[in-house]
Amino acid sequence: MTELQLAKGVNDIPPEEKILTNEVVQTIKEAFELFGFAPLETPLIERYETLASKFAAGEASDALKEVFKMKDQGNRDLGLRFDLTVPLARFVAMNPTLKMPFKRYEMGPVFRDGPIKLGRTRQFWQCDADVVGSASLLNEAELLSIFSMVFEKLNLPVIVKINNRKILNGILEQAGLNEKEEREKAIVAIDKLDKIGKDGVSKELQERGCSKKQSDALFTFIKEGITLQELEQKLTTEEGKQGIAELKEVFSYLKMLGVKCVKFDVSLARGLAYYTGAVFEVFLQKGSITSSLGSGGRWDNMIGQFMGSNREVPAVGISFGLVPIAEALKEKRKLEKKQERKTSTQVLVISINTLNDSLQTVRELREAGIAAEIALGKGVSKNLDYANALGIPFAAILGEDELKKKKVLLKDMQAGTEQLLAVKDVVKRVKR
Amino acid sequence: MTELQLAKGVNDIPPEEKILTNEVVQTIKEAFELFGFAPLETPLIERYETLASKFAAGEASDALKEVFKMKDQGNRDLGLRFDLTVPLARFVAMNPTLKMPFKRYEMGPVFRDGPIKLGRTRQFWQCDADVVGSASLLNEAELLSIFSMVFEKLNLPVIVKINNRKILNGILEQAGLNEKEEREKAIVAIDKLDKIGKDGVSKELQERGCSKKQSDALFTFIKEGITLQELEQKLTTEEGKQGIAELKEVFSYLKMLGVKCVKFDVSLARGLAYYTGAVFEVFLQKGSITSSLGSGGRWDNMIGQFMGSNREVPAVGISFGLVPIAEALKEKRKLEKKQERKTSTQVLVISINTLNDSLQTVRELREAGIAAEIALGKGVSKNLDYANALGIPFAAILGEDELKKKKVLLKDMQAGTEQLLAVKDVVKRVKR
Repeated sequence: MTELQLAKGVNDIPPEEKILTNEVVQTIKEAFELFGFAPLETPLIERYETLASKFAAGEASDALKEVFKMKDQGNRDLGLRFDLTVPLARFVAMNPTLKMPFKRYEMGPVFRDGPIKLGRTRQFWQCDADVVGSASLLNEAELLSIFSMVFEKLNLPVIVKINNRKILNGILEQAGLNEKEEREKAIVAIDKLDKIGKDGVSKELQERGCSKKQSDALFTFIKEGITLQELEQKLTTEEGKQGIAELKEVFSYLKMLGVKCVKFDVSLARGLAYYTGAVFEVFLQKGSITSSLGSGGRWDNMIGQFMGSNREVPAVGISFGLVPIAEALKEKRKLEKKQERKTSTQVLVISINTLNDSLQTVRELREAGIAAEIALGKGVSKNLDYANALGIPFAAILGEDELKKKKVLLKDMQAGTEQLLAVKDVVKRVKR
Repeated sequence: MTELQLAKGVNDIPPEEKILTNEVVQTIKEAFELFGFAPLETPLIERYETLASKFAAGEASDALKEVFKMKDQGNRDLGLRFDLTVPLARFVAMNPTLKMPFKRYEMGPVFRDGPIKLGRTRQFWQCDADVVGSASLLNEAELLSIFSMVFEKLNLPVIVKINNRKILNGILEQAGLNEKEEREKAIVAIDKLDKIGKDGVSKELQERGCSKKQSDALFTFIKEGITLQELEQKLTTEEGKQGIAELKEVFSYLKMLGVKCVKFDVSLARGLAYYTGAVFEVFLQKGSITSSLGSGGRWDNMIGQFMGSNREVPAVGISFGLVPIAEALKEKRKLEKKQERKTSTQVLVISINTLNDSLQTVRELREAGIAAEIALGKGVSKNLDYANALGIPFAAILGEDELKKKKVLLKDMQAGTEQLLAVKDVVKRVKR
């Protein structure tokens, strides 16, 4: 018998972590639905040629190497999906009668057979919402509003940075960078402003072939804290002006929707390969987690290209990063010294020769909506130990004495206090 | 560009179906947690040798042929999980300090690269709850109680059939079938009693090598409607008596837990390969769906064997069949003539030159917990058409007249009626 091991690069999510990620997933799901997004579940297995066709549409072909490939018994080439966007595009392509705009969300695992780094696994969840078939900027505002609501509910203060690809293009044009390749290199450098500062970016720009003059010209626009209004005064190119007008429109909608956490950031570039308009990225206001908790943007060209048609199928979407969000919540809970829970059980009912009545008590607790279990161990102390190990907050002990009084002995496991209570009062106490 | 297609044997679950399966999943999840089961998420990818080792532990090796196999970039042999039991056993084996009893649930996709039949796909969800490390029959009663609660909440009247492998063994022994192989063949025949009747089973038993005398002896026990009490009078073998005692104990707990849908059925055999005690199977009381909606049983030997140790790790569990449950609900809803919904949205807010105020209305509805979206189409009739196509129950039209009156025109999409209402009254109307 061989030793049992996990496959390389994937993890079990034990109860103490899964309870937390379930809460996050549920909060995101409720927000998506409150905003009118409908659930779609696409299979984890796709035809290999479907997965490969995204790259024909312009993505770096490196990523294709990270697809887990396999064959079925009919020798067909298949692969595991690496994101939720390709399955969405395939679904839209295969369902031409789909009512537009199509507002869908999907949450589930995706796979990448890449190098293992800290916090990066070969299977991880994505939680995406996208609007397909509407060019309206209302969608940007609605999606940003979902970010705002979810992080507020999770009690994680965030800043959502926003920029527009058209603004970046306008700036590059005005600074005299006209070649596509030049621009892409410059944008990679600009994206690092937060991390390496102005001097670092400037150095990198010149290493990447920018002239000193071009680099200086760029820095009249690309500076920390520059506002949309300031930029509007300086930016004269057509595309740049259009980008600014779009963001102003988005901000006007955000005001109506009561969203306050969105801030313009001219240096936000991200994943420029397929974004065509607004881009967003979410960061914690404080705390040690600096990686983004979510991101998104408008990508009007990809679905059409992907479908092999010339028609434009506008699309805009957001994605939540489940792993960094769970990390942020774990850190927060550690600071708040909350006990880790390995189960949702609120009350462990311990029978001392009163099994039938104890079962009746468990039943009554559940009927009142309280998660309860009957203790399975032998002896009170062993069962209290079980409650302790799992972080169950209450134990209800029912012996013959308690039974006579029609009460149970409720033990608060953390405080160590005990109270003799009727079941209906246990319900009140636990719900408090 | 190649035509986009699904991989063979897998499906998209479009919103109108996913909304329904999400409701079922949520109902099952809530019941699992109410009964003290904690969530575990195991990866979809396992090492091939882990998947194969189950079969070393006694399963038919045919099933191993249905594993989707692959290799990672490090040339390791991997496969997609075909059930949630092997990952559970691996998790238990890899975590020796796990607190017992370990009550876990897991819900997620599993994969089998087998022939495609009606209602059978190569990727399908399993929803399992198991108790590992407790031999107590309380667990059987608790798990049956979960079946009862879930199907009651889903408003699907069911019968949960129960039997005990020890009873079947006892009967076979008393009828003179002593060889393991003989017994297995007889059980396959007995399992068909519901479908082919007594005469059919009798014929099959004799074809499979039973003597007429043995077959007749079996039918003194195996008959439709025989009660546990009647059986108790006749069954004299030790193992048979033990099985009866176990079921009587389970029934006594079920009474305390208020569970009424469980019925003893001596012909229930199912998956006898690894069950060691109670076996359960859930059927609709009426309706055209005859396949089982759930099943389970006690399997005390497998984890220990699987771990390669000699110690017994008792386990008992249940599994919900998501596909047949969703089919049963679809059929029911069709009979009740409920409109199919393609979104959770309850109100579509349609602006007629009042975009800012309409956004404000959308926001207020959401704050009151009502799923709402802002209409993105051009023109009222196009937006009403969208609401209709998606099954959105209400449209709230906000033009300048309504705005002056501080009201919206609420249209009930199915009844076709309209009412001029303040937003707070819209909330009341929609919640009703």
